[in-house]
Amino acid sequence: MFVHHVFFWLKSPNDATVRAEFTKALQELVTISTIRQSHIGIPAATNRPVVDNTYAFSLLLMFDNKADHDDYQDDPDHHRFIERCSAWWERVQVYDAVETD
Amino acid sequence: MFVHHVFFWLKSPNDATVRAEFTKALQELVTISTIRQSHIGIPAATNRPVVDNTYAFSLLLMFDNKADHDDYQDDPDHHRFIERCSAWWERVQVYDAVETD
Repeated sequence: MFVHHVFFWLKSPNDATVRAEFTKALQELVTISTIRQSHIGIPAATNRPVVDNTYAFSLLLMFDNKADHDDYQDDPDHHRFIERCSAWWERVQVYDAVETD
Repeated sequence: MFVHHVFFWLKSPNDATVRAEFTKALQELVTISTIRQSHIGIPAATNRPVVDNTYAFSLLLMFDNKADHDDYQDDPDHHRFIERCSAWWERVQVYDAVETD
């Protein structure tokens, strides 16, 4: 299992139109066929010093393996998502994780 | 669905004994009953500017809802994990995410 977790900080995180368009774009993005499981999220109502709840949207994607993740990165629909949405984000942070030995 | 993603940076990330003990402790931790799905990870072999691959271990936990997550936080086995492992870590970063509306 390959876990790809992306956090987006938006330039206008409270703009309802941007939020709706961004959500729609994420919902279309997660239909890419190599994605085994997905979760589109917003910060939960947890508030501890170790919790970063400053992001606007999170995107969790799970793939069977790195090859499927790499195919996703190259997918035309993924490139279209970036073209469509990148002007809205201020910062993107990604963590990729694979199983321990 | 409630997504709880934790990243651990260790004081001695290359110490094989610490890594083995930490892995074992994580494997025991994820048996807590309210956890619906889990993934214990290490950084994948991806290397882009947006990817943070400096952490030592990642722990992804999925719960049905926030109440189950809150129960997990209070679980004696979770407290034992913190007691057993916290001396090894240098930094912990958590992201909690729930579904968008």
